[in-house]
This record gives sequence, structure tokens and C-alpha cells, in this order.
Amino acid sequence: MSYVHAGKEYSRDSRYLTTRITADGRDGFPVESGRYRLVVSRACPWASRAVIVRRLLGLEEALPMAVAGPTHDERSWTFDLDPGGRDPVLGIERLQEAYFARDPGYDRGITVPAIVDVPTGQVVTNDFPRITVDMSLEWTAYHRDGAPALYPAALRPEIDAVNEVVYEDVNNGVYRAGFAGTQEAYTEAYGRLFARLDWLCERLERSRYLVGETITEADVRLFTTLVRFDAVYHGHFKCNRQKLSEMPVLWAYARDLFQTPGFGDTVDFDHIKRHYYLVHGDINPTRIVPVGPELSGWLEPHERAALGGRPFGNGTPPGPLSPAETVPPDHSPTAR
Amino acid sequence: MSYVHAGKEYSRDSRYLTTRITADGRDGFPVESGRYRLVVSRACPWASRAVIVRRLLGLEEALPMAVAGPTHDERSWTFDLDPGGRDPVLGIERLQEAYFARDPGYDRGITVPAIVDVPTGQVVTNDFPRITVDMSLEWTAYHRDGAPALYPAALRPEIDAVNEVVYEDVNNGVYRAGFAGTQEAYTEAYGRLFARLDWLCERLERSRYLVGETITEADVRLFTTLVRFDAVYHGHFKCNRQKLSEMPVLWAYARDLFQTPGFGDTVDFDHIKRHYYLVHGDINPTRIVPVGPELSGWLEPHERAALGGRPFGNGTPPGPLSPAETVPPDHSPTAR
Repeated sequence: MSYVHAGKEYSRDSRYLTTRITADGRDGFPVESGRYRLVVSRACPWASRAVIVRRLLGLEEALPMAVAGPTHDERSWTFDLDPGGRDPVLGIERLQEAYFARDPGYDRGITVPAIVDVPTGQVVTNDFPRITVDMSLEWTAYHRDGAPALYPAALRPEIDAVNEVVYEDVNNGVYRAGFAGTQEAYTEAYGRLFARLDWLCERLERSRYLVGETITEADVRLFTTLVRFDAVYHGHFKCNRQKLSEMPVLWAYARDLFQTPGFGDTVDFDHIKRHYYLVHGDINPTRIVPVGPELSGWLEPHERAALGGRPFGNGTPPGPLSPAETVPPDHSPTAR
Repeated sequence: MSYVHAGKEYSRDSRYLTTRITADGRDGFPVESGRYRLVVSRACPWASRAVIVRRLLGLEEALPMAVAGPTHDERSWTFDLDPGGRDPVLGIERLQEAYFARDPGYDRGITVPAIVDVPTGQVVTNDFPRITVDMSLEWTAYHRDGAPALYPAALRPEIDAVNEVVYEDVNNGVYRAGFAGTQEAYTEAYGRLFARLDWLCERLERSRYLVGETITEADVRLFTTLVRFDAVYHGHFKCNRQKLSEMPVLWAYARDLFQTPGFGDTVDFDHIKRHYYLVHGDINPTRIVPVGPELSGWLEPHERAALGGRPFGNGTPPGPLSPAETVPPDHSPTAR
């Protein structure tokens, strides 16, 4: 797969399947416990948003999850982590099969997250910004007791505004830097990225979370980029003004979230590193995966509680992960 | 030029031209003021040793210097920084011409540093570990007043022992990591590199310099790798357990040297970054040069003077650089 096009800026194909799963089923897909399967890769920042939100809201039983392997070939993410290389529920080897079940002529990206309708084996949606919001607003019947309000009505305009600039300059900005086909396009993306990170540092200096006093959708979306920053974006994507660990405010903010149940416990650094370094042969032709960085810093005290804020608002943290969804300990930071 | 060979370890071609320029002229090349020309690139760590030692010893007039451009093609370093693209003294466009003048069938690396005999236009030597030692021991007639003893007899066994492990694990170790053709070869080089850096941190924790109380050849050799660490080895060569700036002892040691006349004032970060990222197409096929890292930290206080030591022993620091040899200010760190 080619990500870099010489002489061109990187441009994300953002034509998604926008069918929605809603409480009222107006697109033909009503919220229903056990009917759908959320397909993710723990490597992918867009999918990781859904992994985190699902866990924060306690949707594990209502919306079971399939985890694809960290690498994929020209064609598709694959279920190579599962016995026999097949997802045990969908019975398929490649996520591509569920896209073709939806549309035999499907010619866009085989992306995660994707939600598959189990009875028909068809992808319903891969519209990642909508998926997490719908988990918050449409799947309420299945939220756990104590589920936080990640997208509260009163804060939506501000959350949306933050999300928009964070998406352009940070979430997608690192890709625009890493897959730039010209020095100019890279330099422009790098400048926007670090200007926005400086803006975020200022915003977070006296505020524990991005919007309001509690964790919201905005924090989830920023976190999934920050947690990958030093492991892949700093070197592999040349986002190297500083490491995240050299930006004290943002680093403490990221550590605070990492240490909050539902965030760091969903992160698989092994999958993250292997995905980026093994799949992007056009920027890492040797496909050698770095041993570093040292990850133990993620567990160091963040001292952000002094800023106030209530992580879960009137809610509570999620409980422990089920054994089936626990990330292998050697894929996570350990104390030095 | 291909640096990485799939399935193989990186192996440096260390067959150098070992003719020596000596006080007694026993190889036919006596030390003589103005007869030779030191050809370097400021990008290259091996050449930079010679640039530093020449300046510490005050050999600028006796041994004039030609600076090749930071990039080179398949064939040779070139004098593309000079008017008309030719070295004004040697009259050649490519360093290769001086190697062919020495040996028309020369088939090894066209490397810097190289010392050229100006009357014949032939490379005398490119044996970099010998070049700096001979500057110290053979060029004494032209040393400035106050030149330090960089290779004092009493300390030679210890300097040699340190140099040997630093060469294997650090100076060449970063190349073994960066140009590894297998994951195993990379991982082995990475392990040795960081184990040796840890060893150096311990050694330098209570000692201002590597051997004895003053700057020696051992410090020069370690410095030229450390000064490139965050700019190129950390990302480009995947030496990413930590940045140098995250290893407090070694970082303070490197800053101390950087701020010592003769070290930092010879460093051209623009040449360093452009060389590695533009020349090594087999590990950076897009040839995009990172904007980072932020360099201002090099100028921060190092507080190593508290450890004692006398940088130049009974000697003195070198004076200011001549205008012709001054690195452009925008290729150097500036205070934030």
C-alpha cells in the first residue's frame, strides 16, 4: 500500500459508510445487545477511540469486540490473532469480506473501527467520529451504572470546536507530516502540529481536561494521538520538535488519562509499533521495529488532580477489564 | 549508495589509506606547514573529530581545511559549497579525483576526513583514528601556544581502552543499529549501544571528562557521536530508548563540551541533518529532512564545572574562529 505520493500532500480518504446504528433504528439498524460486532485494531488511533469509549460506557457485553492483528497487507486488516486466523463470531479471515458483503464493489479503505451486523455479516458503518458519539447518545439503554457523560449537550459546541482543530492539526496532522510527499507539505504540517500542541499546553495548564471539568469525547480523541506520539509519530512521522515527554503540561495530561481506567489499560504499544513500522514500507523500507522508547514514564505521578476536575463527573470509573480483553502485560509499560 | 543489506548486519569497510604524515617524514610525507589540505564534511562524525582536534591544537594555518557539502551522490563527496563547485586550492569538484590521483584503481570508500598532498593532488591518508592522534603527536611544531595535550603518554592505555569500546558500541554502534538488515542485528546493536551509554553515564557521574582531569582524544571521539544523537541517530537510526537529552549525566557532559571553544563552534546541525536524511535513501526514501529537534537545550547551563577538572590542563582554550571557518548562525542552536 502506498501512503506517500511524491510531490503531493497526504490526503485522507474520508468517504465512510455513514449508515447509523440508532436507538430508533431509522437507518434500519436499531441498537440491540449482541447484534453487532465492533471490529478494531489496537494499533489504530481511530479505532482506539471506540475501544476507550465502549469501555468507559460499559458497552462490552452489548457490543462485543473483535481485535484484528496489528499488521495488514495490501488488501485488509486480518483476524490473525484468532485461532485458525478467523474471527470466531463472523467466521471471516479478513475484514475486507465484511465490506464486500455490504457492497461487492466496495473500493474505498478497509478501515477500523468498523461495526458489523452479525446476522448479515455486513459492515454497517466505519464512520469513526460518529461511532463514538452514537455510543454516547444512542446506546444509552446499555450504558453501565455510573457511565460518564462524554458528550453532554451543554458542552457540545465547545467539544465540537476543539475536536475540529485537534483533528486537522493533531490527529490527522501527524499523518500529514509523516506521509508528506514534499518537504514543503511536511514542514507545513509540522508547523501546524506543534503550534496546536503549544495551544493545547496553554489550554491545559490550568484545566485538568480539555472541555469542562470532566473527561469528554474531546479528551478521548486527543489521547489516542498523544499515546502514540513518542512511540511512532516522533521518529517514524518526523514529528520531532520535542517528544511528548518533553512537553510537561501535555505529558502530565496524557499520563493522567493513561492512568485512568479505560484509557491506558486499552493501549497495546507492541501492536502500535509493529503496525506503523511494519505496514508503512514506503517510509520504513527495512521494516525494522524500534526497541524504544522506554515506556515506564507513563506510570509516573502526574499531579494533575491538584487542578480539580472530576474525571467521571457524577459517574464512576469502569471496573476491571475482562480477562479476554486484557492487553498482554509485556505490551504495556512496566515500572523501572 | 546502499547502506542496508537485507538479512545482513552492517559492516563498515575499514580498509583505509594508512600512509602517515609524520615529523620525520618516514612515509615520504613530512609534517610541513601549508603543504597538505584536510578535507572534511561537517556532517560526518569521523571528519568532525579532525575538525575539533585541529582547532584545539591551533593547526588552522599549518593545515588548511576544505569543507565538502553535506550531501554526496553515488560517487563522491563534492565541493559544491565553493564558488564554481571546485575546491579553490585543489581545483577539483569531487573528492574522488584526489583518491584516483593516488590510485587510479581505487575501489574503496571515498571518505572524509582525507588529507591531500597539495603539490601532487593525491590523498595521503583517510585513516581517521590515526589522523587525530598524529595531529597531537606529529604536528607539535605547529601547535599553538597553550595547545592541550589530547593524547598524553601517561593516559594512552586508558584512552585507547575507552576509545575501543566507545568505537564498537557507540561511534560505530549507531550505524550498526541504523543500517541493520535484520531485526536481530538491529536489536543487538541497540542493546550494546544503550548498555555502553549507561556505562558512560556511570563513569561520567563523578568525573568531568572520560579519562583523567582534562579533555582528551577520548572526549573528542565520544562528543562527535553525542552531538548527532538527537538530531539523527535517535529517529533516523532508531536509537530511541531515550534521547540524549533524557540521559541527564551524558547530556550535561555533552553540553559542557559543546560550550567549550573548539567543540560546539565547529558543529553544523544543518549539514548533519541534511546529510543523513538526504543521502540514506534506503532508510529514508522520501528524503524529507525533519524540522526538529529543538536545539536550544545545547546552550543551557551544564553545571559540570562543580566536578572539578581543568578542560585544557596547563593549556588554554583556542581563540575565536576565523570568519572563513565560522558555521552559519542559522545552522546552530539559538537561545529560546
